[in-house]
Amino acid sequence: MSRVVQQPSVSASPAALLQHVRAGRASSRAELAALTGASRNTISSRVDQLIGADLLLEGGRGDSTGGRPPTLLQFNSRAGCVLAVDLGVTSVDVAVTDLSARVLATAGHPIDIAEGPRAVLGEAVRLGAEVLAAAGLSDADVRAVGVGVPGPVEFSTGRPSHPPIMPGWHDHPIPEAFARWPVPVVVDNDVNVMALGEMGVTGSDLDVLVVKVGTGVGCGVVVEGRVYRGAQGSAGDIGHIHVPAPDGRTVLCRCGNTNCLEALASGASLLRDALAAGLPVSSTRDVVGLAARGDGPALELVRQAGRTIGTVLAALVNFFNPHRIVVTGGVAHAGLPLLSGIRESVYARAMPLAARTLAVELSAAPELSGRVGAALMAVEACLDDDGVRVALS
Amino acid sequence: MSRVVQQPSVSASPAALLQHVRAGRASSRAELAALTGASRNTISSRVDQLIGADLLLEGGRGDSTGGRPPTLLQFNSRAGCVLAVDLGVTSVDVAVTDLSARVLATAGHPIDIAEGPRAVLGEAVRLGAEVLAAAGLSDADVRAVGVGVPGPVEFSTGRPSHPPIMPGWHDHPIPEAFARWPVPVVVDNDVNVMALGEMGVTGSDLDVLVVKVGTGVGCGVVVEGRVYRGAQGSAGDIGHIHVPAPDGRTVLCRCGNTNCLEALASGASLLRDALAAGLPVSSTRDVVGLAARGDGPALELVRQAGRTIGTVLAALVNFFNPHRIVVTGGVAHAGLPLLSGIRESVYARAMPLAARTLAVELSAAPELSGRVGAALMAVEACLDDDGVRVALS
Repeated sequence: MSRVVQQPSVSASPAALLQHVRAGRASSRAELAALTGASRNTISSRVDQLIGADLLLEGGRGDSTGGRPPTLLQFNSRAGCVLAVDLGVTSVDVAVTDLSARVLATAGHPIDIAEGPRAVLGEAVRLGAEVLAAAGLSDADVRAVGVGVPGPVEFSTGRPSHPPIMPGWHDHPIPEAFARWPVPVVVDNDVNVMALGEMGVTGSDLDVLVVKVGTGVGCGVVVEGRVYRGAQGSAGDIGHIHVPAPDGRTVLCRCGNTNCLEALASGASLLRDALAAGLPVSSTRDVVGLAARGDGPALELVRQAGRTIGTVLAALVNFFNPHRIVVTGGVAHAGLPLLSGIRESVYARAMPLAARTLAVELSAAPELSGRVGAALMAVEACLDDDGVRVALS
Repeated sequence: MSRVVQQPSVSASPAALLQHVRAGRASSRAELAALTGASRNTISSRVDQLIGADLLLEGGRGDSTGGRPPTLLQFNSRAGCVLAVDLGVTSVDVAVTDLSARVLATAGHPIDIAEGPRAVLGEAVRLGAEVLAAAGLSDADVRAVGVGVPGPVEFSTGRPSHPPIMPGWHDHPIPEAFARWPVPVVVDNDVNVMALGEMGVTGSDLDVLVVKVGTGVGCGVVVEGRVYRGAQGSAGDIGHIHVPAPDGRTVLCRCGNTNCLEALASGASLLRDALAAGLPVSSTRDVVGLAARGDGPALELVRQAGRTIGTVLAALVNFFNPHRIVVTGGVAHAGLPLLSGIRESVYARAMPLAARTLAVELSAAPELSGRVGAALMAVEACLDDDGVRVALS
């Protein structure tokens, strides 16, 4: 016989019980007892605590398997709210969501991240208060804050670590800016946050690459539904992988090396090449807009960028063998030309076994995944063992 | 505040208690109770069962923190043995080890995997009986069998899946060949098995790439100490990643594509290039031997192969951000010339943050890691929840 190695036992902590109900794995005390192996008494007293804290709701009758039909349990996603902050290189967006990451109100505007942490975070806090008011909620309803930033973050402290395009932000204690809300504040880089957003509120147990094509190029790496970070937390940093230029050019990258992926195929390189080709554009958004409207030269630039990104993804498909690749970020608004360039290279060079059932897709809502991901990250933080312990105390 | 998201609760199943003692996380009933949160009664009765089944030993007195000093517990690695089968393209090796993967006896000889499953597995079973006898053990002492094969395997059934260099093995039920021992039989591809072997008996919670440079090139991917497989189980299949040839050549690969990594840098390509250069060799082993003895042209071939492999690893370092890369396989016997070629490319092209504390090393015992890994895989299978339940029944 052959069989799979050790499975961890199923926890019956109050937080674990809540997660089982929330994920739809159980909807009654009996199902929770069967799933976790804990006694009916233990389950009942913990469920009562969760109901007392308003995190679970009781109502309706389930199907009986003999005897009295069970009372159904439901996760109360209105037991509080979280703030989701999406900091971009040129924008700040804040949403308030319920505990299922449903957006209740959102606000944002352009801002230059180089204005520094004091100005930008001050604005994020102001927008947070604004969306709470717009949704008819108060500061006391906030359970956690999630923040995505466009650079590397030391996840355990929430401090940016030498972020190349966030001057003045190195080692800044971002969580302290949100002291108005005395709750957990979780900070991560925008690509990891977007990856969470693409997994959605139901989560996933799949292996997924979420590729962001914006000013730069980055990748969120999801292993069995969880963000993979690597030794220094820099996993997914694919923008500086070396690629041969299709026309044999040598292009200097802002990192000092030559022919990095993002020197050849990114929002910044698209703008550079479009200007060099004499297209009437002044921003990456203009190039993407032209391509989306079917302008021939812009289309070809976007498609070629897709092909170049695809050569790197083909190698990563062989190595990582993901179930899905999701393409997001500002350049993803160009749509099919980008996607077909990527697919062309991936299917030309990836191994047939690894590519067989691989899905390569555009994000359904590239502009929202940052906020939804930040909300999900915040929800996780307030529904983990520590968070639930606080809620029950 | 910022903090890490949900941790699973610690299990107190008999198998989990055994693992805690085996890994050195606890050495007394009191420590097990503190670690798992289970009651002293539960712990005591489960520990007594494990002692009754000879899996734990009791002896000595620990330090007291007040009151009677605790009795120390120890994992009994002699409670049984496992068979470790390492099938290569041209060899079969079988070891019997204790439950800590210490080799008690080993035997093996050249064989051509193309002789097919009946002949090769028959030989493996014969060698299994031979090493058991050599170690003074009987069939009844065998707790599990681990098998590594040089091709893709459907892990859940232990059947090879279209293995390119194992003609006649597709879909063959390998575990059935070992029916002489009515115990769990676990089969995986050799690179995953070697990765386990390199993690060692103490395991690891690190992110590691184990790169095998043999006839072909493959990679075991370890995420937080566990083998990562991907969607179709083909993760780590780096041999067919496209690389530019250093001299601009176009080289056809046996897969039908051009300039795959293993067409340019593998045991097979080394032999081809050495013959083309007129070196007096008739096998990859000869080329590796020449390089290890300092022959100039052979050294340069090996070093160049290292550089080419390093260009792929540089990209993977950016993407995966591992703590360590371990190089193993037949060509690793060439030693430093291979390693320095790899390091040269990795440090030239990987991002400074990801490369900062990265260790790139040769395997300490490339010829043994296949057997140690197969033994560890077998041990895991007999010490998981199911395996311990059988032992206690």
